[in-house]
Amino acid sequence: MSSSSLPARGTRDFLPDDVRRREYVVRLVRDVYERYGFEPLETPAFENLETLTGKYGEEGNRLIFKILKRGEHEASGAADLALRYDLTVPLARVAAQYQSTLPKFFKRYQIQPVWRADRPARGRFREFYQCDIDALGSTSLVVEAELLAAAAEVLTRLGFADFELRLNHREALTAMLEAVGIPPERHADALVALDKLDKVGIDRVAAELRERGVAAEASDAWMEWLGGLRRDRPDPEGALARLRSLVAGRPAGEAAVAALERVVALSAGGPADGRIRIDPSLARGLSYYTGAIMEAAVPDLAGSLGGGGRYDNLIGMFLGRPIPACGFSLGLERILVVMAERGMFPAAAARGAAEVMVALWDEASAADALALARDLRASGLRVDVYPEPDRPGKQFKYAALRQYDVVLLAGEDERREGTVTIKNMRTGQQVIVPRARAAEAAGAQLTQTGKDVE
Amino acid sequence: MSSSSLPARGTRDFLPDDVRRREYVVRLVRDVYERYGFEPLETPAFENLETLTGKYGEEGNRLIFKILKRGEHEASGAADLALRYDLTVPLARVAAQYQSTLPKFFKRYQIQPVWRADRPARGRFREFYQCDIDALGSTSLVVEAELLAAAAEVLTRLGFADFELRLNHREALTAMLEAVGIPPERHADALVALDKLDKVGIDRVAAELRERGVAAEASDAWMEWLGGLRRDRPDPEGALARLRSLVAGRPAGEAAVAALERVVALSAGGPADGRIRIDPSLARGLSYYTGAIMEAAVPDLAGSLGGGGRYDNLIGMFLGRPIPACGFSLGLERILVVMAERGMFPAAAARGAAEVMVALWDEASAADALALARDLRASGLRVDVYPEPDRPGKQFKYAALRQYDVVLLAGEDERREGTVTIKNMRTGQQVIVPRARAAEAAGAQLTQTGKDVE
Repeated sequence: MSSSSLPARGTRDFLPDDVRRREYVVRLVRDVYERYGFEPLETPAFENLETLTGKYGEEGNRLIFKILKRGEHEASGAADLALRYDLTVPLARVAAQYQSTLPKFFKRYQIQPVWRADRPARGRFREFYQCDIDALGSTSLVVEAELLAAAAEVLTRLGFADFELRLNHREALTAMLEAVGIPPERHADALVALDKLDKVGIDRVAAELRERGVAAEASDAWMEWLGGLRRDRPDPEGALARLRSLVAGRPAGEAAVAALERVVALSAGGPADGRIRIDPSLARGLSYYTGAIMEAAVPDLAGSLGGGGRYDNLIGMFLGRPIPACGFSLGLERILVVMAERGMFPAAAARGAAEVMVALWDEASAADALALARDLRASGLRVDVYPEPDRPGKQFKYAALRQYDVVLLAGEDERREGTVTIKNMRTGQQVIVPRARAAEAAGAQLTQTGKDVE
Repeated sequence: MSSSSLPARGTRDFLPDDVRRREYVVRLVRDVYERYGFEPLETPAFENLETLTGKYGEEGNRLIFKILKRGEHEASGAADLALRYDLTVPLARVAAQYQSTLPKFFKRYQIQPVWRADRPARGRFREFYQCDIDALGSTSLVVEAELLAAAAEVLTRLGFADFELRLNHREALTAMLEAVGIPPERHADALVALDKLDKVGIDRVAAELRERGVAAEASDAWMEWLGGLRRDRPDPEGALARLRSLVAGRPAGEAAVAALERVVALSAGGPADGRIRIDPSLARGLSYYTGAIMEAAVPDLAGSLGGGGRYDNLIGMFLGRPIPACGFSLGLERILVVMAERGMFPAAAARGAAEVMVALWDEASAADALALARDLRASGLRVDVYPEPDRPGKQFKYAALRQYDVVLLAGEDERREGTVTIKNMRTGQQVIVPRARAAEAAGAQLTQTGKDVE
């Protein structure tokens, strides 16, 4: 097989079973997002290059796929377009362009692929879908609570019984770093090191902190405090109390802890209740967050199922004035990986191409076979027609291979007598029914095989 | 506004109302395609450059968006990837890569965007969606009939009452050109000129034929024959008879006419019945067609709503052996343009963000407001929560602007008494109900306003 029959590196084809599983998750995500009052938005796959450059930091810039100028400029090798790197910068652009028509509190969801020229690895692709919700225009913590509730409801309805929602706050991080004695000019370094805690463990983080010039005393104090805290996992009140006492006397830090407390209180009784873990070690990579930061995680997946936070300065960047915003992004690929490993897909997500096949006796009866298929489709069934005359045995074998539930065949005898033979592929049993009752009888066979007719 | 707040040239943002209209059409298309036994396939947005180059002719090659190599090669300006130009070449690649696992008669649908660096114009974009169905593996004309039926059923269910399905055959075209005396070496030129007939009229086609070196006698004979035929519009039998007599004695042409006749016969009684117009002037641009060619059109749209045909040599190109195939592609953007101009969208496609808004009295009652929203959502409603305390008048005004149907508010009095005020935004009437009955009562208000609850 030539290399040109392979998809590009880091991308995948989704065959029918894959698409059905993806669609099952996307439909559920969309349904929950809509119940929470979010509206759909879609943006183009590519943007003007200048819209994306400089928005994702040095590392992000490097991962942007750039598109060559067309026409006479092609030979120059210059790029003027770039593939969408995330769904947040396009949202900021939309917020600027349609500022006069969008509602004051614009709540949008967007479920589309993004592209990053990352090194492909297990579960990491160059094309992957994000399922984002963002609420613009309000600084109220009701927004954070609603986002967490929506994410929790999605994961609960998908069948995740063991997820947790890690919650932290950028200002709490800053106050914490101040409290353990790390000077402001080392904060960015400290957060980069902290971001790796889950992957590399506390000792390696401590080592990196020292390499990055953080004094041993401050680093040790911080690691000891974090180590003590991580034993508090299931108890947001306990973690909040420890955090509150650490940042005491630092107004921004105290306000951040109060905000976290408020988000926990607003989540009581809802889908996020009992799921939230206050996690002062949660850093989130992106530098644009300004308030609460959050992440959804399950024990058997390194990394997160999704994450987000408040970013009050990004959305207004194309407008020149700040617009408060808070968002959460679920990673479709990671959700699918865990669901596949755990066998979490319901039977409905695995249904085959069709329930019914109409066999083709001979050329002369083809029009009758198509008319039969029409009746079956009109009754709501998904129906394949064997496209050419062939031995009945071969046609039944094909239907078995395709896992069709029922096959209808009108041979010479049946056509003369105005009947149709219906074979139940699960039981192997055959019945002969009048042609006029064929659709009804096929539906009854499907009910017998335990399949729902839509 | 800086240019960076605009989407890239030839692309569009889809705001919530746009997405809902698009989704309405896509859902219906998908439903019909599935009833016909087609299965979903999705392929990556970009392919290896070599997979796409040389597949679309000189003009097509020029319109492919190429993606720069990443990393150290970026400075070279070389491209190694390209955005999908259509959904057919990716299907051919998939057919090669998964040949051992795909069914013998692989019937797939694919609804995804494609990208072409075309000059943008009214209704012509650089990013647009195609809704393709293709059936691989059979040369039976049952396939053509099923494709036409599926396309006709989509258009009928969308509400198009006046579409026609233009049908021709590549071999009939060849025999026709032979019959009027155009030599084989002029056939390609003749078809290029013919392809413009709808746009420029018969006189301009005749002029172009002469410019392209077709003898006046042959050109005149052909144009006269076509002119006579175009009066036969509603009558496939008449057109078939004329075509049959023109190509008489040319076996390939006679077989082609018989095939067209067979497709018409197989369509009797189905959704395509009465829609098919045998149109010997239909050429279709792409050179890869080998058999039937077809197009769906409405009178008020220049160009087609979709088209397709049989192409028995393309799918096997990555395999080195021919695989018969026939496909039909509906153009989502064109369907949407006509539906918008004619006002064909049902109310369900224009529903707003949410049916219900929960107002927020003060910070202290925020948790109760979220609990109320939770109950409403659990009963199936789409619910927005006003995110911050504000004057009730302002909140009601916001709800009116957003066209929400019902607003629920629990102020101090209501909370003391365990009740909720429900305001019907259509009638302006307010009722006070016990908190425990709030969801039920809100649902009842929605029924009154004539909206269905999902």
